[in-house]
Amino acid sequence: MTKIHGLPSPPNHCFGCGEKNLQGMHLKFSYDGAHRRILSKFRLSRRYSGPPGYCHGGIIATILDEVMAKLNRPRQVTAVTSRMSIAYLKPVPLQQPLRAEAWETRATGRRHFRSAEIRNEQGTVLARATGTFIAIDARKMFGRAV
Amino acid sequence: MTKIHGLPSPPNHCFGCGEKNLQGMHLKFSYDGAHRRILSKFRLSRRYSGPPGYCHGGIIATILDEVMAKLNRPRQVTAVTSRMSIAYLKPVPLQQPLRAEAWETRATGRRHFRSAEIRNEQGTVLARATGTFIAIDARKMFGRAV
Repeated sequence: MTKIHGLPSPPNHCFGCGEKNLQGMHLKFSYDGAHRRILSKFRLSRRYSGPPGYCHGGIIATILDEVMAKLNRPRQVTAVTSRMSIAYLKPVPLQQPLRAEAWETRATGRRHFRSAEIRNEQGTVLARATGTFIAIDARKMFGRAV
Repeated sequence: MTKIHGLPSPPNHCFGCGEKNLQGMHLKFSYDGAHRRILSKFRLSRRYSGPPGYCHGGIIATILDEVMAKLNRPRQVTAVTSRMSIAYLKPVPLQQPLRAEAWETRATGRRHFRSAEIRNEQGTVLARATGTFIAIDARKMFGRAV
């Protein structure tokens, strides 16, 4: 159990970022406060294959969903993905340094509209997403804070 | 190496369905020729957690992408995901019997428009997707058949 602001934080088994999920992706994130963007740098192992040598479209979706969801903390909400649209622009290679970024474009009531992209080391955008996240009461929906 | 119609088939390391990917999801599919639908029945382990007790949105995307992609074989094309839009309607529970189905709605030239959904045992739709798949020459794009 890690503690944040004196409150016990539940163990994190999230497939994308959970430190307690031994079979998860263990993605790491940072927040660029000046540009209000979440950043993640990563390399994908062969485990995440779609076509030979390239990442699975579902794993690309996982990374884009994760990086957009991580805007919850700086926005001080618990919001879950309601809709996500992905444009697969170029194949995403395995074993290469990659970077994902996300930012919030608009918020209306409980709805947070966000965008994200994955780029290679040369800065070429390989995949793009837009997502709608809905702020929820996590204790009501999942029986505890998330 | 398994053989189909006398041709060697490359080992499948796909995260979603690859029998050679020891850390993959090992999803299984069948084709309902009468309704031209791909079907998959599965249960999700805790490894695929998003919020506690429920599936990660990226894994939901993986299943929807996989089941739509599996329409390639009856359509006799190699087509890759170009766009996918997902509606997350209700939380998708772990450890429960679930079912995914996909069907093709339209094809225009190289573009194949498909839809998919995930339902629980009671038949409630938990997530829905539409996808655009583009027929490609796999040897040119990936250096071999996929």
